[in-house]
Amino acid sequence: MSEVKKTELGQLGEFGLIHHLTDNIKLKHPATIKGVGDDAAVLDFSDKKTVVTTDLLLEGIHFDLTYTPLKHLGYKAVVVNVSDVYAMNATPKQITVSLGLSSKMSVEALDELYEGIYAACDYYNVDLVGGDTSSSLTGLTISVTAMGEADASKLTYRNGAKPNDLICVSGDLGGAYMGLQLLEREKRVYSDNPGVQPDLSGYDYILGRQLKPEARKEVTELLQKLEVVPTAMIDISDGLSSELIHICSQSKTGCRVYENKIPIDPTTAMLAEEMGINPLVTALNGGEDYELLFTISQSDYEKFKDAGDVNIYIIGHITEESKGSYLVTNADQEVELQAQGWNPLKNKQ
Amino acid sequence: MSEVKKTELGQLGEFGLIHHLTDNIKLKHPATIKGVGDDAAVLDFSDKKTVVTTDLLLEGIHFDLTYTPLKHLGYKAVVVNVSDVYAMNATPKQITVSLGLSSKMSVEALDELYEGIYAACDYYNVDLVGGDTSSSLTGLTISVTAMGEADASKLTYRNGAKPNDLICVSGDLGGAYMGLQLLEREKRVYSDNPGVQPDLSGYDYILGRQLKPEARKEVTELLQKLEVVPTAMIDISDGLSSELIHICSQSKTGCRVYENKIPIDPTTAMLAEEMGINPLVTALNGGEDYELLFTISQSDYEKFKDAGDVNIYIIGHITEESKGSYLVTNADQEVELQAQGWNPLKNKQ
Repeated sequence: MSEVKKTELGQLGEFGLIHHLTDNIKLKHPATIKGVGDDAAVLDFSDKKTVVTTDLLLEGIHFDLTYTPLKHLGYKAVVVNVSDVYAMNATPKQITVSLGLSSKMSVEALDELYEGIYAACDYYNVDLVGGDTSSSLTGLTISVTAMGEADASKLTYRNGAKPNDLICVSGDLGGAYMGLQLLEREKRVYSDNPGVQPDLSGYDYILGRQLKPEARKEVTELLQKLEVVPTAMIDISDGLSSELIHICSQSKTGCRVYENKIPIDPTTAMLAEEMGINPLVTALNGGEDYELLFTISQSDYEKFKDAGDVNIYIIGHITEESKGSYLVTNADQEVELQAQGWNPLKNKQ
Repeated sequence: MSEVKKTELGQLGEFGLIHHLTDNIKLKHPATIKGVGDDAAVLDFSDKKTVVTTDLLLEGIHFDLTYTPLKHLGYKAVVVNVSDVYAMNATPKQITVSLGLSSKMSVEALDELYEGIYAACDYYNVDLVGGDTSSSLTGLTISVTAMGEADASKLTYRNGAKPNDLICVSGDLGGAYMGLQLLEREKRVYSDNPGVQPDLSGYDYILGRQLKPEARKEVTELLQKLEVVPTAMIDISDGLSSELIHICSQSKTGCRVYENKIPIDPTTAMLAEEMGINPLVTALNGGEDYELLFTISQSDYEKFKDAGDVNIYIIGHITEESKGSYLVTNADQEVELQAQGWNPLKNKQ
């Protein structure tokens, strides 16, 4: 058995490490005037508006390295940020990546993480323009900031939804949450019986939703093509309920969404039932699906006939604020939406 | 004795916490179109260039909460970032702040941290426009990204220094490092004899350099006023040696700096000698002073006669690359500069 090469981070030193990780960056955008290598990156957004967003990923909270391949983790760290840029109806252009690294991490492991970061930069057509690399006494820390640009007239906030607007979602929900449940279950089985191989067969789709999510760039491209500017938009990172409540509270509206309209993949539903979880709950409160949730004027509805390959699901409509925010079940009951989210700050019971 | 109020973070929940921390933000810049509260902030840099920089501060690596007041820490987290913006000869405009919080941290403690962040936002005239708040299994994690703007013609990189340019520094060096040594010494004394009060009297200046550094905004204002654009500029976060080497290697030059020209505060020198450290080494390798190091054409030298209150020290000059980068000691010996920096990734010996 050949040994995996492990170069200690200390062998390269801080500046050596930065060179090692960033020397091969090829900038994609003329608007990226200066990338890595000075006190700050320099960007030119000229006549466009700039959007900026940031997300922090911490070991033990947002990811578990026992079952998360580092390449996927690097990819996902970029995805969760560009997803926020798309949710503004903007186009991502640049990112910065800061890392806190424990000394037990090897250069080769870090290279895998960066392989994922660079793969995402290529797929989403963004330039890596800066960052900060530090040691960490504890786990791996990843902080990404993404910048993007948009015409002022296309920017889409959370606060523009109007009564009678249609509520749209760009893909099925709950898969990422069930992927996480599956990985956690198999981790427990493995820790009880280290001889047993994890049984993940047949679940590629939902594992992919958890481990290698994609941001929905084709949706913002479609909106561009169809010349539709949504009245409000948000990405689904905390679960449908929570994001609907964000839109309704910022837009000062209510909403009705219908159980039978909410897209849930059959694998998600099957595994949820096997594990005694109501599939609807995974869609409402699961989170991390990174689909886009947006509202459109009824007058734009016809345009979506030319949506082509991109599936857009209409799951309900916006109401007056006084009518509240409710899910209408298949039994025609109204259940008030709750902003559960992940609330990772809540003490474990 | 009255008890200090401690509200657990979990009582507010994630969204409650974000509201608690950000509801009172008043945006300062017309260019900040949308701040906290959507998927991304929206900025308008119109005909200016945008600079962006980011820094990560990790508990146990960059700060020790046993002697760092949280308010100072929040202030410093902003300072280290706006300092990088000034080092581009740009004006900071916006920041994002991401936090990883351990559950043992109270809302009141977090408020102190934010008090410092907001104080720095006021002093440096920047808008807090976004961030991410998460729980952390381990220590406190602070990730700040700063954006600023500059006219294209004023942007100052590290790579523009030319032979015969004068090397300038905006203030005394080594103080922050000696402040840290003092705090660490008194921490050891206290941990050996918990009854003994730390003896920090007479050291206010260097403690302030470590705990509450300022970025040199008045220097970029002065450069503006004097109509001087430095040929190269960098902020001193890793020590003078390391930053000089950055400028020389990116500008493809060498340099000569003179021991007797390097500004060192008397308190710094006194404490260094008391602790058996060569004061010159604290200036060359100490770091965290956040002074600006820049090079100017000799033809701009006269203009600095109108510098008024702002002290600018000329410590040497740029040479041809083949002449190397050296310190000239008081005994007229040439000592090659070494990029020691902090190298926090190096294994502890």
